[in-house]
Amino acid sequence: MLSPDGRRLRLLDQRALPGQEQWIDYDDVESVAQAIETMVVRGAPAIACAAALGLSAASHGFGDDPAAVRAAIEAGCARLANTRPTAVNLFVALAQIREAIAAAPADADAGQLRSVLHDTAQRHVDDDLASCLAMGDHGAPLLPQGGTILTHCNAGALATAGYGTALGVIRSAHAQGRAITVLADETRPVLQGGRLTAWELARDGIPVEVITDNMAGALMARGQVQAAIVGADRIARNGDVANKIGTYTVAVLCKHHGLPFYVAAPWTTIDLDIPTGAEIPIEERRGDEVRRPAGVLTTPADIPVRNPAFDVTPAALVTAIITERGVFAPHALADAG
Amino acid sequence: MLSPDGRRLRLLDQRALPGQEQWIDYDDVESVAQAIETMVVRGAPAIACAAALGLSAASHGFGDDPAAVRAAIEAGCARLANTRPTAVNLFVALAQIREAIAAAPADADAGQLRSVLHDTAQRHVDDDLASCLAMGDHGAPLLPQGGTILTHCNAGALATAGYGTALGVIRSAHAQGRAITVLADETRPVLQGGRLTAWELARDGIPVEVITDNMAGALMARGQVQAAIVGADRIARNGDVANKIGTYTVAVLCKHHGLPFYVAAPWTTIDLDIPTGAEIPIEERRGDEVRRPAGVLTTPADIPVRNPAFDVTPAALVTAIITERGVFAPHALADAG
Repeated sequence: MLSPDGRRLRLLDQRALPGQEQWIDYDDVESVAQAIETMVVRGAPAIACAAALGLSAASHGFGDDPAAVRAAIEAGCARLANTRPTAVNLFVALAQIREAIAAAPADADAGQLRSVLHDTAQRHVDDDLASCLAMGDHGAPLLPQGGTILTHCNAGALATAGYGTALGVIRSAHAQGRAITVLADETRPVLQGGRLTAWELARDGIPVEVITDNMAGALMARGQVQAAIVGADRIARNGDVANKIGTYTVAVLCKHHGLPFYVAAPWTTIDLDIPTGAEIPIEERRGDEVRRPAGVLTTPADIPVRNPAFDVTPAALVTAIITERGVFAPHALADAG
Repeated sequence: MLSPDGRRLRLLDQRALPGQEQWIDYDDVESVAQAIETMVVRGAPAIACAAALGLSAASHGFGDDPAAVRAAIEAGCARLANTRPTAVNLFVALAQIREAIAAAPADADAGQLRSVLHDTAQRHVDDDLASCLAMGDHGAPLLPQGGTILTHCNAGALATAGYGTALGVIRSAHAQGRAITVLADETRPVLQGGRLTAWELARDGIPVEVITDNMAGALMARGQVQAAIVGADRIARNGDVANKIGTYTVAVLCKHHGLPFYVAAPWTTIDLDIPTGAEIPIEERRGDEVRRPAGVLTTPADIPVRNPAFDVTPAALVTAIITERGVFAPHALADAG
């Protein structure tokens, strides 16, 4: 969120959760970019919101020369685009800003340009929250009454402008009295499930249990999981879904056990310009995230590790994609777009 | 291993690996039992060896009255049997000891009983090592030339009397020049893959890369895994395999990708008295192992967690079971037993 004067972006440091609730203020582009890179803020929609609001806050330091402000906004967009490659919402938000600035009157002064930037950023955030609420309405009826729902990573309020995508659907189902229990994969390496999903659901009084990522299959085999729902970082034209590493395994397990596998994502996550998941760039992050669970070295530095941050779930494994426009079969996105 | 005078069991503390190589001496049953419970030593064959040798060491404190020595051995067997329920090798080793003591001459003195106990324990250990070497011979030809082999948990020298089951097969394949690379699941919650498998393979110069448990599926989808091989804690008469939690998911992933899934285990792991995997007791361990990756609290104590230490892979997902007697289809174990 922005500070009341609009000059600072305020982020809850998600690296410190759930142990500490620390807010950090940002007023320049480079700091915002690094906050995204180091996962102070994470989650495809939240990254986009932070980048847009962060650029708006930073623009108060861009001076009073309109040409310089336009150039700084463009440079800011370029820097922010170079943070994390997989989630597409970031690129959508930056495109909205570039388009709005380009459409501003040629004689707009610096203050007017800042207003255009602010309003565009804020509209992106407002739209994201509205999308989450609409996804909740559309998706909740899909969840079973009294069942256990598996989720992976954190697709919650912390990953969006608020309410959440996958967890938004769960929130709506809970509010409708569906008596669901959430099973949260801890989601190595960064543990977004054990740290963030558990924290935000427990705060809302929604029953949640945490498991290590490798337990979900065994619990499905025992009949203790009724469905899975996850978010997405980018969805290709054919319905292939890039999401946090491990999502693909959840989808394969659902297929093997005959369970529905749902994806909840705002329309900004759908990249109709990319034909299939094979073309989605997958970020490789530093090996230390794997070597140091919770920051403690367990695998020595001379042992090679792999760290793809995302994987691609083919459309054939996705039961349905829940968006603010309704629920779609994965292959039907292209026609709806 | 035993100290030279046979009065102490010496265990390498696997909880401290790979950071520190600490050896701890044990000379009483209760300490040995707790070492097994707290996973100073783990791995189905190694637990059995430690229990047998530990009881032998402890018997030097059982006094000189033959009846008292017999009673203390029986009490020791009962305590050691009450440590970890899933792996069956422990119960095999204890049965061998009980049988040998029962078969000792009625007038055997305390020293003779200790000798019987020691020889029985040492024979169990020698047999386990010999079995691992034979498994290596039988299993190595199954592994592909120049491929990447996924393994889960640690079924290595650290989990056995030496050489390893799954890692023994890998060692033999490596020694035969098959140029394989090992992909080691880190294996939450206790991280035996990232800590132990990586450590022992790197010491032997066998190429190894560590991944988080949720990455294996994505790498299979990319064609970067050619086979999986794991150990076992108990195999039922019908070929169902209980092994470290997450093994089942690896097997489902192999099935989905058309990859062979091998289990390597000594014959002592096969429990022909149990008809199917559904009858294998699955240990639930304390939630702190899940809440505290590498010992650091990440999921607060008021959030419920699950911690089944093992899962059951149905025989239908197992390509072959590699034993010291040869390679078997899972359903063929009963006839061979």
